[in-house]
This record gives sequence, structure tokens and C-alpha cells, in this order.
Amino acid sequence: MPQMEPVGIIGAGSFGTAMANLLALNTDVLMYSRNADLVQELSTDRFHFGVELHPRVQVVNDFAEVAKTCQLIFPIVPSDNFRSMMQSISAHLQPSHLLIHGTKGFDITGINLEDIPKNGLNRRQVHTMTDVIRAESVVVRVGALTGPNLARELLDGQPSASVIASKFDEVIKRCHAVLSSQQLHVFHTHDLLGAELAGVLKNVIALGSGILKGYGLGKNIQSMLITRGLHEMIHFGRALGSDARAFLGTAGIGDLIATATSQKSRNYMFGYRIGSGENLSEVRATSQELAEGVRTLMITRHLAKSMRLRAPITEMLYRIVFEDFPVKEAMDYLITYPYEVDVDFL
Amino acid sequence: MPQMEPVGIIGAGSFGTAMANLLALNTDVLMYSRNADLVQELSTDRFHFGVELHPRVQVVNDFAEVAKTCQLIFPIVPSDNFRSMMQSISAHLQPSHLLIHGTKGFDITGINLEDIPKNGLNRRQVHTMTDVIRAESVVVRVGALTGPNLARELLDGQPSASVIASKFDEVIKRCHAVLSSQQLHVFHTHDLLGAELAGVLKNVIALGSGILKGYGLGKNIQSMLITRGLHEMIHFGRALGSDARAFLGTAGIGDLIATATSQKSRNYMFGYRIGSGENLSEVRATSQELAEGVRTLMITRHLAKSMRLRAPITEMLYRIVFEDFPVKEAMDYLITYPYEVDVDFL
Repeated sequence: MPQMEPVGIIGAGSFGTAMANLLALNTDVLMYSRNADLVQELSTDRFHFGVELHPRVQVVNDFAEVAKTCQLIFPIVPSDNFRSMMQSISAHLQPSHLLIHGTKGFDITGINLEDIPKNGLNRRQVHTMTDVIRAESVVVRVGALTGPNLARELLDGQPSASVIASKFDEVIKRCHAVLSSQQLHVFHTHDLLGAELAGVLKNVIALGSGILKGYGLGKNIQSMLITRGLHEMIHFGRALGSDARAFLGTAGIGDLIATATSQKSRNYMFGYRIGSGENLSEVRATSQELAEGVRTLMITRHLAKSMRLRAPITEMLYRIVFEDFPVKEAMDYLITYPYEVDVDFL
Repeated sequence: MPQMEPVGIIGAGSFGTAMANLLALNTDVLMYSRNADLVQELSTDRFHFGVELHPRVQVVNDFAEVAKTCQLIFPIVPSDNFRSMMQSISAHLQPSHLLIHGTKGFDITGINLEDIPKNGLNRRQVHTMTDVIRAESVVVRVGALTGPNLARELLDGQPSASVIASKFDEVIKRCHAVLSSQQLHVFHTHDLLGAELAGVLKNVIALGSGILKGYGLGKNIQSMLITRGLHEMIHFGRALGSDARAFLGTAGIGDLIATATSQKSRNYMFGYRIGSGENLSEVRATSQELAEGVRTLMITRHLAKSMRLRAPITEMLYRIVFEDFPVKEAMDYLITYPYEVDVDFL
């Protein structure tokens, strides 16, 4: 077997760590964190999120080293830190680098989430991670890693499927080579925007699915929410410039099902607590980090409003989460909503 | 509110009983069973599957009375009894009747399931319930009732969504009128064949999903199976003459998610026991009735073979269930299957 290229990871969160161990099945991995204490700790302990780091994973605090050693780099950090992370590493990046991000959220740099209800939000203020990479660096060959990838399961060695999305065959090919294994089936798509949007938007529906469950409801209505939610995601994606394709595959339906039916999903569990009767500030007070879906819900609801999109599920979820609207009334609204035609997006 | 037409139900199984109580929210219901003892018992006790029959549900043993009182009739009996049921009631049916079935399986009258592996099966030997109704009666205006409708949840008063599929607007309109309620959102589609096939084929994938869970696997790989399973269902549906539309809505994705992720699904639980290490005869010995998905798996696998369809999931499930093929090997086969392109049916 030929020697594979070493790869870099930016971020040592649960998904970044899971990907590091998966990549290490095939090649050497440099996992970068800006947190010097954490790097020190991980270098010594070699344990993170309850699992041992693969011997081929090296944890580093110096991004220059990653940029020098690796052409292929996976930035995997929360969406609200993504742009500042890019700005901090940009000087080290060259046009020869390939960046494949694994972040499922929007960037709204310069805008406070709390100010949005007052000021609104327009299309030009909302950016994908690809937009951010392109805006903040000289890197051209960009991709996204998405799909049903609950980090906890990946860490525990469970098999899964990922989707590598990129306009560039080279990105797809090299990502396939370093990532495919008996634990991970790698699909690909050229619809980068669609795959990114599917991964971002599904967190809102997962949150809603958790609310239904927390409220004591069953699988029938959860399945209706997920199906209609998928259709709402597709409408949204189209309004933002993508087509339906990616939403109907592993990066869309697949990711949505995993996230919207698993107690290992942070977004689902956030919704579950809301549905059980806690309010936003109670959940916030006892969560280490806010689920991406909460930010995304704030962003998509106001984007839908300024773009005049029909998004009844997003609207109801927004009212439940941010305006203490009763779940029962939202349910009654949605179950009598005049949808009628089952599939209207083809 | 205008007086609504009385409706009939054929079959007093769990789904038939659930539909009777749902219809009774709007109108009078005659529930017919051929089993005189059961009719006697239910007429006295008024309890079935742990719930009380709605006062507007009348249980009868005389189909002539149903045919005389109701124009709109819902046959809801297992697929392997469907044709003989139709033959037994056919003399009472007139062209003015509307039949909307709620059965999710194929008819292969004249063929023993056990003989199929030896003799094979071709397209002309496999019929939908609509085919059977049209072949065995003078009724023209036919429809199917499908969607995420776990009977146990419906019986327990949980909200849900159903899809009414018919070529006839009259069928759709009248079914909407008697069925829509705060507990049930009713969608419709004109793609009758697609909706029927989605409801039938999803049982096989639900069975597979149960196998993965019984085998100890997680949500990531379950989501991949469901997604690829949906695509395989779509390919299958196209080969049988339907298009993709119905598969992507509540009758497809919706029903699939509910059935493939719920322990209240007979098909899922059948798979779960197989995945846990029991074999077919052990499960059969302790089951009151065989899950529809087991029959459908036998039928679709041999149909795929004679039609030369690419159906790797169906093939692996067939081998696991009927040929004691190891789950681990089937998993390895599927996770390294050369799918690559994520969505290839649009």
C-alpha cells in the first residue's frame, strides 16, 4: 500500500477527535488546538472524550507546523468561532492547501444573535463555512464533510457513512483515500452548497423532533415533522441557491434521521428539554455549549422572514424556543396547516 | 355541520380498529369482521387492543349490511388474506362503492411463499391490493390509505398524519372529509401506485433497521441503511412503473422513518430479534402473525432477481433472514459496496 499523505485537523472537539481517530486508520494525523493547556494535557494523557487517541494522532499547538506538513486540512470548529479561527491561521495557508470543513452552522460575523429579533437579518449577512474559507484565505479547493456522523458513536467505533462534498474532483479523491475504511463508507457529491445547507438546516428539525419527544408524543407525528421538515429544508435550500438533490441523500435525509432520532444528538436533546417544560435560559444555564441548532433557528427564522419564505415549522419552533409559545398550540397549528399535497418540490 | 356519510371498515385488526376510532370522531362507523365470535365479544365488551371502541363504532358480522349502509369502505386485512376477503364480499359490491385499502403488502395468490426460492417469481405473479380490488370486484374508484401510522400510537390517541392516494379526486375529497381531525393530518397524492409501493417496500427496510439495532449498532449506520434503503425502494418502484414522488413524502420517507425506528413496529421488532441472534423459525414460533415485511422480503428479493434489479440491501437482508448469513459479513459487504454517488435517482 502506498504511503498516504498526512492530514491536519483544526479543533479538538468531539467530532474533530472522532475524525482524527478515523483518519489515523489510514494515515498520520496532526490535530491542532489553539488551547495550549489542552494540547499539553492530550499529548500526555492521550485520552479525550473517553477514548484513547490513535497512536498516529499527534496533538499540536503550532498551526504553522500543520500548514507545512499537511496539504489536506479539516477545520472542525463551532460556526461562531469559524471566521476568527480562519483569520488566525490564514497567513499560513497557501493556494496549494485543500480545506474540508466539518462545521454545520452559519456565520453571521458582526451581528449579535440577541440583536437579530430587533434588527432583522438579510441574505447578505449569512454565510456558509465555504464562504468564510474563501473570504478569509487564498485557498481555492474547498469541501465539506457531512452526513450522519454522531460524534459519540464515531468515538465508540460504530460504523457510519460520511459525504464529502466539493466542486473539485481532486478534493473528493484525496478525501476518499484518507477517510474510507471498514468503519466509514464515504459518499461524494459535487453539490457543495446543497450538502452544506442540508447539514446546517437539519439541526433545526432535530431540535423540533426532540421537542415532540420531550412533550410525550410518538413516532407517527415525529415522522411527519421530519418529512415536512425535510421539505421545508429543501424550500429553504432552493431560496439560498441550491437544488434538492443533496437533501435527498446521505447528507440530507441520512444526517437528518440520525440527528432527529438520537439522544446522542445535542440538538435533539436541547429540544427534548424544551419539550419537557424547561425554558431557554434554564437549558442554557446547564449546557456547556449551545447546540448549533439554536443559533441556526434564530438565523433561519429571520432569514425566512426577510426573504418571505413559507416556513411554518421553523416559525413554530422559533416561537416555542424564543417566545415561550405553548407546544400544544404549535402542534395544533401544524396539524391543521393547509399542506394537503404531499410532495410539492419535484 | 352537515351530517357525514357512514363508513365501513373490513377487518378488526389493530390498524382497522385504530381507523374505526379515528373515523368515529367525524361519522358513524360499521366495522366488519368475518369472525362471528369476535363480533359478539366486541359488541358486548366494547374493548379491543386495550382501548374502548368509540360509541359511534358498530361491530358487525354481516357484510351485506355494510355494503348497503356505506358507499365508502376501508378494507384493512393482511395481504395474504386480501384476495379471499375480496372474493367473499364481491357479490355485495356495486360500481357506486369507493374502496380505500390500508394494507401494506403484495398479493401472490396461487403461489406458496415456501416454493418461491425453488421456482422463482416474475412480475406478472405479483399484485398490489389495488390490482386485487379491480380484479375481484366491479368497484372502480379505488384508493390507498398509507403514511406513518403505527397502530399502537393511533389507538393510544397520539396525533399522526396519513396519506390518501387515489387517481380519483372524489375518493380523496370524501376520505379527507371523514378522516381529517385534530388527531390526524390528511395529505393526498394522485400517485396511487407509488404510495402503495412505498408502504409495502418500506417494511423490508424497517426489518433491516431492526436487525442493525438488535446487532448492537447505532444511529449513524441505521440512518445510512434507511437512506440507501429509500433509494433502493425508489429504484424498485420505478421498475414496477411508479415514479419517485410518493417515496419522498409522508407516504414514503414519513412511513419509513416511523416504521424503521420504532419498537412499536412489528417489522422492526422482527428484525431486532433476528439481529439479536434468533433465527427465523425461533421468531416464527413465538409470533402470533408473521410481519408483512418478511413476506415482502421474500417476494421483492426474487422479483429483483428475475427483473435483474440492483438491490444489494434487499439481497443481504434476504440472506440474513432466510439463509442464516452472518450480519457482520452483510454489514461489511454493504459498507464497502461501490455506491459512491450519493443521489443517483433524480
